[in-house]
Amino acid sequence: MAAPLPDCSRLCIHSITTKPWSLPEIIDGYTRAGVPALTLWRMHYEDNGVIEAAKRLRDSALRVTSLCRGGFFTASSARDREHAKDENRRIIDEAVVLGTNLIVLVCGATPGIPLPEQRRQILDGIAAVLPHAQTAKVRLAIEPLHPMYADSRSAVNTLEQANNMVTALNSDWLGVTIDVYHLWWDPTLKSEIERAGRSLFSFHVSDWRTPTRDILNDRALMGEGCIDIPAIRAWVEHTGFRGDIEVEIFSNTYWEQDQAGFLQRIKQAYLTHV
Amino acid sequence: MAAPLPDCSRLCIHSITTKPWSLPEIIDGYTRAGVPALTLWRMHYEDNGVIEAAKRLRDSALRVTSLCRGGFFTASSARDREHAKDENRRIIDEAVVLGTNLIVLVCGATPGIPLPEQRRQILDGIAAVLPHAQTAKVRLAIEPLHPMYADSRSAVNTLEQANNMVTALNSDWLGVTIDVYHLWWDPTLKSEIERAGRSLFSFHVSDWRTPTRDILNDRALMGEGCIDIPAIRAWVEHTGFRGDIEVEIFSNTYWEQDQAGFLQRIKQAYLTHV
Repeated sequence: MAAPLPDCSRLCIHSITTKPWSLPEIIDGYTRAGVPALTLWRMHYEDNGVIEAAKRLRDSALRVTSLCRGGFFTASSARDREHAKDENRRIIDEAVVLGTNLIVLVCGATPGIPLPEQRRQILDGIAAVLPHAQTAKVRLAIEPLHPMYADSRSAVNTLEQANNMVTALNSDWLGVTIDVYHLWWDPTLKSEIERAGRSLFSFHVSDWRTPTRDILNDRALMGEGCIDIPAIRAWVEHTGFRGDIEVEIFSNTYWEQDQAGFLQRIKQAYLTHV
Repeated sequence: MAAPLPDCSRLCIHSITTKPWSLPEIIDGYTRAGVPALTLWRMHYEDNGVIEAAKRLRDSALRVTSLCRGGFFTASSARDREHAKDENRRIIDEAVVLGTNLIVLVCGATPGIPLPEQRRQILDGIAAVLPHAQTAKVRLAIEPLHPMYADSRSAVNTLEQANNMVTALNSDWLGVTIDVYHLWWDPTLKSEIERAGRSLFSFHVSDWRTPTRDILNDRALMGEGCIDIPAIRAWVEHTGFRGDIEVEIFSNTYWEQDQAGFLQRIKQAYLTHV
């Protein structure tokens, strides 16, 4: 009897993972590698626009799991905060054009504003754009970011904080993203994943390298680091989650390598360590 | 009427902050700068031994606020964990020689061991050395480390976790260290500082630089970053804490500069931003 075919049907890769590639190269490369889905980063259509990107993706067999990223709701001035809301409404429209029903929110952080005040700004920003998301039938997922990004990327740094926001706004269109890189250390991760339940909208994987050489762009391939990804995946799936499993790796090291070869390593790591 | 003399009576500097200096240079430099206290890092007596260091310090007017650092209780083998306990008993003896009654514990982390198991190892390690600490009249302070150090430095990453350990072991000789760099993002920081109460043994300051260029050695001088240090100091002092305020800065940038000039900048930052 032959070994079972490796199952990559739920494998999704974030386009930033293969940052050196253009969108056409991504579509071609992922298709050749048998990767069925991608999460698209906005940088990958900033040159030629979302409409052309949507056409290319419709012509491919690739599924667009989600759009990365909305958010960045914090700012010192009310005018900048209103601008951020408008920008998020525009991103929701882009998701519709791209044919995906999910946007990941990196909520934002502005050095110098007290964190509780920033979290109020974030809640206010999400509340303001939720009606537009509902009309567009696009879900928004709050992604808690690692506390090392609390200064300038997100003031939401634990799953409990994200769940609290979902509870407060009480909408079927708002949920959370679990990224093992951001949350693996969180002492209440297991119970908060259980609490998220049906509002757990997406799941990101990579690994934590020891030593980490760059605070932003040194994520490791699954299996190269210290994160117990299968344990976290089991907690995630215990909620009933059966969506795509999204590989999101920012890595100066991997970006320097041949991206087609890197895709093969990702597939192998996904099959072995997730 | 003359302006009040700047009050540096509670200013303590960690010897690693001026890492390029030898212990004699530290004693001379801090004394000239009017810094009344230091927390001594073990590296500063590894060449000439603790007895000579103790003699030099006794001959100076400097107060030794604490000894950095004990801990590192986690390990894959029972033998290595026993070795760590022995090492901590030795560090307690060194504290006695140095004439300080406080040791900071960086509790340790070992990639690949599940975090809950590591925390059990840490609790077991502290419990094993506490009787020796009590006999020596040396207090042990658990320092929660930033979650970006959860892989290889400490599996204790929130003040709640540290407080839980203090509660569990219930000894007057065990408490916590609050370091603003490690804990500023912690959503329950204020309430957990209040909970720590009289077991709040020491207080470390520095600042979080945006962007942070190195995960270990890019701490900023107070006032250069996004941490609201006066707010955290107020919470700390609300518990009744009146101990030294310890400046602990790991910085490749500052280590390259003239250390006497750096000390003057530290004093100014302490008087202005703490």
